[in-house]
Amino acid sequence: MGKPSFSDFVSIRDLTKKQMSEVLERAEGMIPYASGEKRTRALEGRILGTLFYEPSTRTRLSFESAMLRLGGAVMGFSTPMGTSIEKGENLSDTIRVTESYADILVIRHPLEGAARLAADMSSKPVVNAGDGAGQHPTQTILDLFTMLQAKETLEGLNVVILGDLKFGRTVHSLSEALALFGANLTFVAPPSLEMPREVIADIESKGVKPHYSSSLGDAVREADILYVTRIQKERFADAAEYAKVAGTYRIDSRLLSQGKSTLSVMHPLPRISEISPDVDSTPHSLYFRQAANGIPVRMAILSMLLGVDP
Amino acid sequence: MGKPSFSDFVSIRDLTKKQMSEVLERAEGMIPYASGEKRTRALEGRILGTLFYEPSTRTRLSFESAMLRLGGAVMGFSTPMGTSIEKGENLSDTIRVTESYADILVIRHPLEGAARLAADMSSKPVVNAGDGAGQHPTQTILDLFTMLQAKETLEGLNVVILGDLKFGRTVHSLSEALALFGANLTFVAPPSLEMPREVIADIESKGVKPHYSSSLGDAVREADILYVTRIQKERFADAAEYAKVAGTYRIDSRLLSQGKSTLSVMHPLPRISEISPDVDSTPHSLYFRQAANGIPVRMAILSMLLGVDP
Amino acid sequence: MGKPSFSDFVSIRDLTKKQMSEVLERAEGMIPYASGEKRTRALEGRILGTLFYEPSTRTRLSFESAMLRLGGAVMGFSTPMGTSIEKGENLSDTIRVTESYADILVIRHPLEGAARLAADMSSKPVVNAGDGAGQHPTQTILDLFTMLQAKETLEGLNVVILGDLKFGRTVHSLSEALALFGANLTFVAPPSLEMPREVIADIESKGVKPHYSSSLGDAVREADILYVTRIQKERFADAAEYAKVAGTYRIDSRLLSQGKSTLSVMHPLPRISEISPDVDSTPHSLYFRQAANGIPVRMAILSMLLGVDP
Repeated sequence: MGKPSFSDFVSIRDLTKKQMSEVLERAEGMIPYASGEKRTRALEGRILGTLFYEPSTRTRLSFESAMLRLGGAVMGFSTPMGTSIEKGENLSDTIRVTESYADILVIRHPLEGAARLAADMSSKPVVNAGDGAGQHPTQTILDLFTMLQAKETLEGLNVVILGDLKFGRTVHSLSEALALFGANLTFVAPPSLEMPREVIADIESKGVKPHYSSSLGDAVREADILYVTRIQKERFADAAEYAKVAGTYRIDSRLLSQGKSTLSVMHPLPRISEISPDVDSTPHSLYFRQAANGIPVRMAILSMLLGVDP
Repeated sequence: MGKPSFSDFVSIRDLTKKQMSEVLERAEGMIPYASGEKRTRALEGRILGTLFYEPSTRTRLSFESAMLRLGGAVMGFSTPMGTSIEKGENLSDTIRVTESYADILVIRHPLEGAARLAADMSSKPVVNAGDGAGQHPTQTILDLFTMLQAKETLEGLNVVILGDLKFGRTVHSLSEALALFGANLTFVAPPSLEMPREVIADIESKGVKPHYSSSLGDAVREADILYVTRIQKERFADAAEYAKVAGTYRIDSRLLSQGKSTLSVMHPLPRISEISPDVDSTPHSLYFRQAANGIPVRMAILSMLLGVDP
Repeated sequence: MGKPSFSDFVSIRDLTKKQMSEVLERAEGMIPYASGEKRTRALEGRILGTLFYEPSTRTRLSFESAMLRLGGAVMGFSTPMGTSIEKGENLSDTIRVTESYADILVIRHPLEGAARLAADMSSKPVVNAGDGAGQHPTQTILDLFTMLQAKETLEGLNVVILGDLKFGRTVHSLSEALALFGANLTFVAPPSLEMPREVIADIESKGVKPHYSSSLGDAVREADILYVTRIQKERFADAAEYAKVAGTYRIDSRLLSQGKSTLSVMHPLPRISEISPDVDSTPHSLYFRQAANGIPVRMAILSMLLGVDP
């Protein structure tokens, strides 16, 4: 396959539908390597630099595991503590120095736009692992991958997205990507946390008219996928209001019994109390497989950016 | 040798005497690989996940070194800071996610029972690297291994165990294991830090009647091994009481001159002031070799759990 | 080449001019491996232990990258948090334990003399990655390497060193090494931060008579290299005094236009505001290449100490 037509992985909006499909296809091929069933030294001698200006163990470890499964090596930092940042260094200097230590960089940063800046500064490929309220594009790809794996096609799939649709980092680009692939979208959110207008405009521009529901029960009945996100306490001025919303939007196996037998529940994890543990052992639970899919998807992205086939 | 008959390494109580002997024997074979004299790629492509919910640099580094010496790779976290735990995630979710990133997990956790829970949740092998006041089984194996290496047999060996026998994490399972191998046990502890009754009951059930001594001098005279542990200041209500105990139980070369010329002093380290530096250069000092033995012992355990011979 | 005549790398003063030349020559040969253009497994199976008692991400990552580029593996800690040090362990115990986990140690410590102590305690090679106000010898070698690469010879090179010459960790040994190689030295420093007398005495004993200038403009006119260091706010009793000095010593492209067209600006980085970003895109900027040279230079040192050729 050789080099992809993209040289960084900063925003899902940079990718065409065809490019997303290429990543999804390559991720499929990575599964035996991701599970350890097959071995590869494809990236032997290559170094991944992980620049986590904001801690995120799960994302960091899944990138590290992906690199190691490809035979590569990893170095970096997991919090800005003890880095030159504390001495007042700006991001672009850090990027220009660390790019000479590694072959590819993964960056997570609290400020939106940081990954784009890093990609612009660096001559090495840069992967955005989340920048503030901005993008987290590898999460979007692994969400699409998980849906495809479970349902075989995204076209016409009924996807209900639930929770904090206003601030939730991942649901914006997921919704846009799903629209591109022709899924049907239903949004369920408390009034103060509804999907922003510009995201809806983007979705509609792709020919998809999203549905809105205030009743979780109604939404669940027709759903193929129920995508749940965390509702953060700090988004509410009032603790009572939070408690009410959190209580309303709790998913349990009783609720799911109202839906299709093939209904799958997804969550980017970590969950707090949005999904009852009694769902874990039902066939509806797809979130642990979703988390595991971080490995083949990130293997696909790292190997494509480095122009190496396993 | 293939797969061992145990699939996790959570508590020394899970192992029969025969299984412990197998681990000890395999550790013996690991010594040239542990020292770097011989090389192996036995675990190439395998990933160790280190989940340290409580910091412990020495234990973590010795597991990491063991994995690297076997040709494997390592990823994980060394403090819970910046992990999903801080976002409120429960242990079982973290285990279910990280087990898909690695081939084997090592966990250290402040709560007793955490490693057992992790082993129950995970389909991958789990090694307990210390859980609260609970078990630290790889320490016990490396202690036995060090005694065997120095004295050739545990049967009839006079082992004096000194210090905090009440809260000391490692001395309970060490005493039980030594009883199983027929060592003679003498306990020396301040009145408030004596060995718990249930441990004594377990030892006696194995046919060993421990001795008790309030005089360190008396105990040292007959000892083959003097196993010293740290006495923690915070166990005492009163600073003066602590100072008195710490002073009484300080080991120096003058005290050791009252014992056998072959007397060996062990300590799980780090030591504070329990052993005088003047012991370091005497033939009595076994504690640095004991620390170094963490590598071959942990190599044995990791490779057995992964079913791979070097 | 085999083993070098030095077994540790603690102070630049331990090395003869011939030994420094050997390191510089080997670093030259490392460039294709450092950039990833060529691959080597020269240090496969070897473990670097990184003991960073004081955080320094840049230095740590460049040692890690150097080890990984040589095919080796890395383990260690990046802050003393969570290490046995916090339990009160002394440095020599930590060294004696960790040396059995690794093949070579890199240590950074806030106290001068710590690296020497570590080297004395350890039977494995120890590299000093900075100890307090003491030495940072790999920085000196990479500075020399960068000057040689840019200017071909150090003999007769006009080097202006600017900034905090009193407390700046690296400028003392750099000045002494440059004197050894016959460079001409000019020092520009605020009155309270002048080069210490013993360093000047050492330089003069090597047959070099340094120049002193209070005017940056004058010094720049004849310079081949302008070596800029950070001036730390905390060195000044008075904020106004700091602001005045920091303002006087700021390097921008206007100032550089008064110098030779071939004038190169170096800085050990991180910079705060000592060098204006408008210098970055000029041919005068050598500091990012200098930072990148940390990899081949540290590869040279690690491989020489381990007696392995790539």
